[in-house]
Amino acid sequence: EVFEDLRRGGVTAANCTCSVWEGFAETMGNIAQWNRWFHEHGDILLKVRTTADIHRAKQAGKTGIVLGFQNSSMLGDDPEMAGIFADVGVRVVQLTYNIANHLGSSCWEPHDGGLTRAGHRMVAALDDAGVLVDISHVGNVTGRDAIDASANPIAVTHGNPASFCPSARNKPDDLIGALAARGGVIGCTLYPLFIGGADVPRSAYCRMLADLAEQIGVDHVAIGTDAVVGW
Amino acid sequence: EVFEDLRRGGVTAANCTCSVWEGFAETMGNIAQWNRWFHEHGDILLKVRTTADIHRAKQAGKTGIVLGFQNSSMLGDDPEMAGIFADVGVRVVQLTYNIANHLGSSCWEPHDGGLTRAGHRMVAALDDAGVLVDISHVGNVTGRDAIDASANPIAVTHGNPASFCPSARNKPDDLIGALAARGGVIGCTLYPLFIGGADVPRSAYCRMLADLAEQIGVDHVAIGTDAVVGW
Repeated sequence: EVFEDLRRGGVTAANCTCSVWEGFAETMGNIAQWNRWFHEHGDILLKVRTTADIHRAKQAGKTGIVLGFQNSSMLGDDPEMAGIFADVGVRVVQLTYNIANHLGSSCWEPHDGGLTRAGHRMVAALDDAGVLVDISHVGNVTGRDAIDASANPIAVTHGNPASFCPSARNKPDDLIGALAARGGVIGCTLYPLFIGGADVPRSAYCRMLADLAEQIGVDHVAIGTDAVVGW
Repeated sequence: EVFEDLRRGGVTAANCTCSVWEGFAETMGNIAQWNRWFHEHGDILLKVRTTADIHRAKQAGKTGIVLGFQNSSMLGDDPEMAGIFADVGVRVVQLTYNIANHLGSSCWEPHDGGLTRAGHRMVAALDDAGVLVDISHVGNVTGRDAIDASANPIAVTHGNPASFCPSARNKPDDLIGALAARGGVIGCTLYPLFIGGADVPRSAYCRMLADLAEQIGVDHVAIGTDAVVGW
C-alpha cells in the first residue's frame, strides 16, 4: 500500500531506510527483502543504483527506491564493508543515528569529539564506493569533519536550519554554508519537532526555504524526508 | 606469492574459492578480504564480474579472479541471497561440498535424494542472478537434477569421467553427456585421487581428454582446478 501511495503521489524516487539498528547479517536480510519487493512489485518500483535509474523510473512511471542506512554500526570496523554494501545497492549511509558510534557523535551527545579515525577511514571508503554520506542526525563537529573529509558532496537528507527552529537536530548556518560550498545538499524536513510544531504557518516554512535557496543556492536545497501527511 | 605465481604462470583467470564451510557473515568477510587484495594487488589481479573482465585481465597482463563457493550452506534458505552474493561478485556456487546440505546430496552420501525443493528454488535464483552452478562434489542424482533444472549451462569445474578413473567424485558418461548437451563444461582435474594416483602416465590422461573432446565436443572440456604442482 505504501508503494501504491508513492506512485499515486507521483514520487519519482525516495531514499528508503533499510537499516538503523540492525547488525550486518540482519541488514543484508532486509536488503534481500527489498530485492524481493523489487521483483514482486516491479510494475511500480525500481531499485536505484545510478542517477540514470532515477530518470528510468520517471520515464517508466515507477518510483525509484534508493536504499539507505540511518546508522553505520552495521558496517563494523572494516572499511571494505562500505564496498560490500554498495555492491548490494546501498547508496546513502548516515554516519550516526541518535547515539554516538565508532565513527562519531550524534547531535544529541553532550560532547561531540568529531569524526573518529575509523570515521575518517569509513568516509574515504564510502567515497570510493560511491555512497552518499548523510549527516542529518550527526553532531555538528562530526558533521563538519565529514564535510571536510569527504572527497564528494555530502548531505543533510532531513534537517532544517537551526536559525529557523532551534533544535540539536537542525543545523547552524556555518555548517550549512560549508556543506553547500562543497556541493552538498540539505533536504529540509517537515517533521513537527524540527519546524517548531505543527502550528507553524506554511508561509513561514516556505519563506525559510526561499531565504535558504537565496543564501546557499537553489541547487543545494531540497525537501527532505519525515514528511507529515496532511500538513 | 600465490598471486605472483599465477602471473608468472600466465594464468588468465582462476575460479578462487572464497567460502566452503563459513556462514553468511564470515563469507562476506572473506569477500571483503578479497576486495582488499584486489585493491592492494591491483597491478596483477582483477576481480572478474563479466566475461569482458576476463578479456580485460588478459590484455592488461593481470590474473582475473572469479570468486566462487564450494558449498551453498552460506546462502541459507532464502533464494534472494543468491542475488545478494552475485551483487558482491560471486559467480560460481557449488551446490554441495562433501556432505549433504539443504539443497541436495554430495557424491559421498550413501543415498542421493536429488535436488530438494529448496534446491530447485536456489538453482532458479542462481540462474536469475547469473551465477554458475557447479556440481563437482555433488551426487549424480542431484547433479543430474541440477543440469535439468537450470535454465543455464552448468559445470563440473573439477572432476573426471568415472570411466577413466572409478571414484564417487568422477562422473558417469550419461551425466557428462547431459551436461554437455545443455551447453555445460567439465573441467578435468589432475588431483591424484581422481586420476588413479600420481603414477598414471601423462599420455593416458591426455588420451582421456582427447577422447572426451571427441565424444562431447571440444568446447565442453577444460582443465579444471586441483592441479598438482610438478606432475
